[in-house]
Amino acid sequence: MDEREFGMIKLYHLNKSRSFRIVWLLEELKLAYGLDYQLHTVERDAATYLAPDSLKQIHPMGKAPILIDDSLPAGEQALAESAAIMVYLLKAYDSKAQFHPVVDAAALKTHGKAWRDYQFWMHFAEGSLMPPMVMSLILQKASAKSPWFAKPIINKLKDGIHRMILDDNIAGGLVLVEEVLHDQPWLADEFSAADIQMYLAVYGAKMRGALPKSHQHTHDWLARCESRPAYVSAITLAGTPL
Amino acid sequence: MDEREFGMIKLYHLNKSRSFRIVWLLEELKLAYGLDYQLHTVERDAATYLAPDSLKQIHPMGKAPILIDDSLPAGEQALAESAAIMVYLLKAYDSKAQFHPVVDAAALKTHGKAWRDYQFWMHFAEGSLMPPMVMSLILQKASAKSPWFAKPIINKLKDGIHRMILDDNIAGGLVLVEEVLHDQPWLADEFSAADIQMYLAVYGAKMRGALPKSHQHTHDWLARCESRPAYVSAITLAGTPL
Repeated sequence: MDEREFGMIKLYHLNKSRSFRIVWLLEELKLAYGLDYQLHTVERDAATYLAPDSLKQIHPMGKAPILIDDSLPAGEQALAESAAIMVYLLKAYDSKAQFHPVVDAAALKTHGKAWRDYQFWMHFAEGSLMPPMVMSLILQKASAKSPWFAKPIINKLKDGIHRMILDDNIAGGLVLVEEVLHDQPWLADEFSAADIQMYLAVYGAKMRGALPKSHQHTHDWLARCESRPAYVSAITLAGTPL
Repeated sequence: MDEREFGMIKLYHLNKSRSFRIVWLLEELKLAYGLDYQLHTVERDAATYLAPDSLKQIHPMGKAPILIDDSLPAGEQALAESAAIMVYLLKAYDSKAQFHPVVDAAALKTHGKAWRDYQFWMHFAEGSLMPPMVMSLILQKASAKSPWFAKPIINKLKDGIHRMILDDNIAGGLVLVEEVLHDQPWLADEFSAADIQMYLAVYGAKMRGALPKSHQHTHDWLARCESRPAYVSAITLAGTPL
């Protein structure tokens, strides 16, 4: 294989999924450093809407994104889990720290706010905001597919779970985002991978009608994200995020 | 306040929750470095089983764990999101890298396997394994609370969601853990915070009967975790993890 032609990095991207994040980050790295990569888009199974089984041959979890970096030792080249892939790409290729804050342990207490905020959002996206949104989506789909005689009971269950646990967690996370963006243009001071990581969750909330119109700073931040040249390239190459 | 008496670090721990991880890590840091901290255990609301509203006064998300480090600048002292708290504690206090692999960017490709594995598990726990387990638990509780005439429909919905999405994700994650532990005693080479992060998820799976008896290496790893002196202290101070 000619590496100049094919690149050393290959991304398996699933349409309308978290792997959009990696396309966007790779486009940022391409613009900033000239990093080259190869994009393989795989389509969701039409019936189940899940990733196709073929991905299991590349990584045992069988879920996108999967990043192959053939500059890694044999047997260690396939990387999974979107946030972990981002952290790897930044360590390996963001040598000027343009997309992730870096701080020495000695300065962590006095000058580490951006670094701490970055860590928070990188984990908060999948640890706190996405799970209730995904559960809400699954319940909605299950309810839509259920027969008419079951719908009243299933909708009552769905509403109860929303009231009990989902709505507060989603709304609370979005309020926190809005409050932070009231004082700064990006989630961790300068633009960083934390904005990419969180964008997908907040965009998902907006698409589902869960992001209040009154969250003006958040809407402005989404627009700032969407006006970045790397984001525009990512959309062109990989389709919409969700 | 006398810092020698109260310590500079304060952890708000919710019983039977993810914040057990932080107690365990703080106990590891105490044994290794003599780091002192103060433990505040808060109890779940008896009716909702959620964190009490009082936590919202400490951090806007109102969920445990919340770590207060008063050596940080005023207004930046409250940290949330369990994995982000762990990453902070390690950077600030694990100066000899006893609980997290460290690698230079220059050596990342050749000697970075432990670091890459560590990043994977730190994100995989909450990004991939916990969400289907939490959803399974919520569906189970909702089903148990529903009236008798609704149960057949709700159980059918629950089984359908399990078949469609939850079971494969939980089982697949646990198979991956078992395969990795076949070749090494800990998830990222040496014992690290990745074991603490993943322990809670795998222990939860075991408690719910989702961890097959045949996953012998995983059962052995759980036992290795549970025999660590810091784990034993954490249980004594904070109660069982779930």
